[in-house]
Amino acid sequence: MKKINVGLIGFGHVGLGVVKILRDKKTFLAQKLGLEINIKKICDKDIVSKRNINVDRNLLTREAKEIINDPQVDIVVELIGGIHPAKEFIIEALKKGKSVVTANKALLAQEGKELFALAADRQKSIYYEASVGAGIPIIKSLREGLVANKFNGIFGIVNGTSNFILSKMSDENLAFNAALKEAKIKGFAEKDPTLDIEGIDSAHKLILLTYLCFGRLVNVGDIFVEGISRISLSDINYAKEMGWQIKLLAIAKKDADELEVRVHPTLIPKSHLLSSVSGIFNAIYVSSDLAGQLLFYGPGAGQMSAASAVVADLVDLVQDIKAGLFRPTLNTVLDKSIKKLRKIDDIESRYYIRFMAKDQPGVLAKISGILGKFGISIASVNQKERHKAKEVPVVMILHEAKEKNLRSAIEMIDRLNIIKEKSVAIRMEEV
Amino acid sequence: MKKINVGLIGFGHVGLGVVKILRDKKTFLAQKLGLEINIKKICDKDIVSKRNINVDRNLLTREAKEIINDPQVDIVVELIGGIHPAKEFIIEALKKGKSVVTANKALLAQEGKELFALAADRQKSIYYEASVGAGIPIIKSLREGLVANKFNGIFGIVNGTSNFILSKMSDENLAFNAALKEAKIKGFAEKDPTLDIEGIDSAHKLILLTYLCFGRLVNVGDIFVEGISRISLSDINYAKEMGWQIKLLAIAKKDADELEVRVHPTLIPKSHLLSSVSGIFNAIYVSSDLAGQLLFYGPGAGQMSAASAVVADLVDLVQDIKAGLFRPTLNTVLDKSIKKLRKIDDIESRYYIRFMAKDQPGVLAKISGILGKFGISIASVNQKERHKAKEVPVVMILHEAKEKNLRSAIEMIDRLNIIKEKSVAIRMEEV
Repeated sequence: MKKINVGLIGFGHVGLGVVKILRDKKTFLAQKLGLEINIKKICDKDIVSKRNINVDRNLLTREAKEIINDPQVDIVVELIGGIHPAKEFIIEALKKGKSVVTANKALLAQEGKELFALAADRQKSIYYEASVGAGIPIIKSLREGLVANKFNGIFGIVNGTSNFILSKMSDENLAFNAALKEAKIKGFAEKDPTLDIEGIDSAHKLILLTYLCFGRLVNVGDIFVEGISRISLSDINYAKEMGWQIKLLAIAKKDADELEVRVHPTLIPKSHLLSSVSGIFNAIYVSSDLAGQLLFYGPGAGQMSAASAVVADLVDLVQDIKAGLFRPTLNTVLDKSIKKLRKIDDIESRYYIRFMAKDQPGVLAKISGILGKFGISIASVNQKERHKAKEVPVVMILHEAKEKNLRSAIEMIDRLNIIKEKSVAIRMEEV
Repeated sequence: MKKINVGLIGFGHVGLGVVKILRDKKTFLAQKLGLEINIKKICDKDIVSKRNINVDRNLLTREAKEIINDPQVDIVVELIGGIHPAKEFIIEALKKGKSVVTANKALLAQEGKELFALAADRQKSIYYEASVGAGIPIIKSLREGLVANKFNGIFGIVNGTSNFILSKMSDENLAFNAALKEAKIKGFAEKDPTLDIEGIDSAHKLILLTYLCFGRLVNVGDIFVEGISRISLSDINYAKEMGWQIKLLAIAKKDADELEVRVHPTLIPKSHLLSSVSGIFNAIYVSSDLAGQLLFYGPGAGQMSAASAVVADLVDLVQDIKAGLFRPTLNTVLDKSIKKLRKIDDIESRYYIRFMAKDQPGVLAKISGILGKFGISIASVNQKERHKAKEVPVVMILHEAKEKNLRSAIEMIDRLNIIKEKSVAIRMEEV
């Protein structure tokens, strides 16, 4: 049986999963494909540590060049993560006529323009299903399954760590730090969780989703990103009482001829499917012109889940190589109705607001007066417990307001001497 | 720009949608593909009626042969539905060297073996994304996106009509007939709704899903099918009170070396995502060995939604034709761990049971005595309102029981003179 040779760069968590699948499911995959996927070489800087698998020592190397320069290797799988030297490895592989599979969202988000252009120029493909939503086939669905659709919006819970923390807070009444601690114990958060909890990982994934839906490879710097580290348990609970759930959403949506691309904690209606996405699960909700509102849901992380996506990419590439001719990835088409990216100052949103105010007469009048001055109207007010001489939380849901006006109003309100701490504002989305 | 010619057989609701997309998105698709998809001919028995689109009269024909025998037509799209002459058209098209796109679940469910074998023999493909879940890319996801996975189970809400009716009953406290009437008014149910409400359409779709997940093309006769027409509003409400939702589920699941394939109303926990799937929406929940638990959700019907799937299939085929070589669909691999299909008598399930009994002492003792005789134990009992001298509903949730035993027990219970009408049993699924 004919063999297609694969070189694997990065023998960590996911790399190990890929090797396991290709070994344990060799026959199964060969039956589906009519040929064999063979691991020709595995590169890692650590080829000494014991791993949970037996591999032929001769397959292992510390030199990526042994893979990239091997003319018998048809496909290079990059799973080392980070920008350098992953970028250089991919460039070299493409230049040597190999197609590439990667799970590296940070790299593609940052350097995608150069890498995708090089792949197109060399008539090779870069596949990256594992980079968003692990085993959920969202990339393939957007690129191929929904190929005829134009998109109005995409709303994703794409970071398992953040979603785990928010779910724990909401379901078990835990404070942020306690929930983060549990995520670390369970292995769902890294020692330094910044990338996940500050929304940066979500932003990387959003860049790829936006590229697939709107044909634009947005710069990291063009995305407004706010994480979940300042979300308090009380806001989660107040929101819940009013029928809303707080989720870290990655949002890309079109409004007239502008595109909004942003990541931030968001109040969504409890009745919406996205509200039911708990723990490390991910879900991507898409609004399309033909196929309507769709949701793709599944575990957003995990060794075998991510490896499942890597192998799916491999199988796609192998089929092309088997056919003997290059079958290029579908071109990404720029949505020309989009004239510019909307700045966060210019978005319009409903807001959840919490003020900590002195419990004295006239507080509401002052706050609503300032909001009114900026043209912001209040949909509902909820003044919580009253303890004499202490500050009380005043929770409001606002009608649509411009972000810039909202910020100015809050700044002014926060300068009032009846306001005891920095006020909280969280955007809302009806989805 | 190079053109790929498509012949369309069936210019009804979905066919019209396909023509609209290929016309309105000609440039968009050409940019993605690097070539043009051209409608060479459209066949329908009615080429006179006004349709909501302007097409060149010369494209229209009443003769399918004009498409099938045209050597310039590369792909035939079959959208007439039904078994004959759709089957003959597809066979002829494959024999003439054309690949086929169809939305015809009834045909593939019934005649798939012959058609898929012929396609493989002729090195052509039959694509059928629109046949399940309309625009939801579930077929592609199971076949390609999850290619490395083995499946434990698949649970689908795949009939929009039934789900609309059950949602209406549950949300608006409507009786079955009233809900069905509304479905008809809204155009969500056909004049004769049998295929939809009796679970037959769901069974057809389940056959295709089972084929993709387990490699087996099960016969229609091998599937246990029960529709929703005997679901009463009171059962929906009693179930709801206890935290369950009744949905028409299409289920294929492995247990040891047997496969269960069945369609029936099912109580599922309210907290499960499938419970939140309302109205004409569809959702397919999959349990896989690598990618874990996944859900695919979207509108299960609709002209443009189904047409979106047809065009996605077309684009896939066009890419292959463009590459100049046949790129066969991945082979379906039989899950050899499955030794046989389990008969409905032999399944084990939890059950929701409702008895209408005389309101007199000793009723519960008699019922539970009989259940006990068949080794069936009760998880909870709920005796509803008590009106002297009238029958009262006794609702029970049972622990796992064998279907055969459950039926025997109910038969015996129904012969008691304290039982006033045929008892109700509905299977439960924890999913």
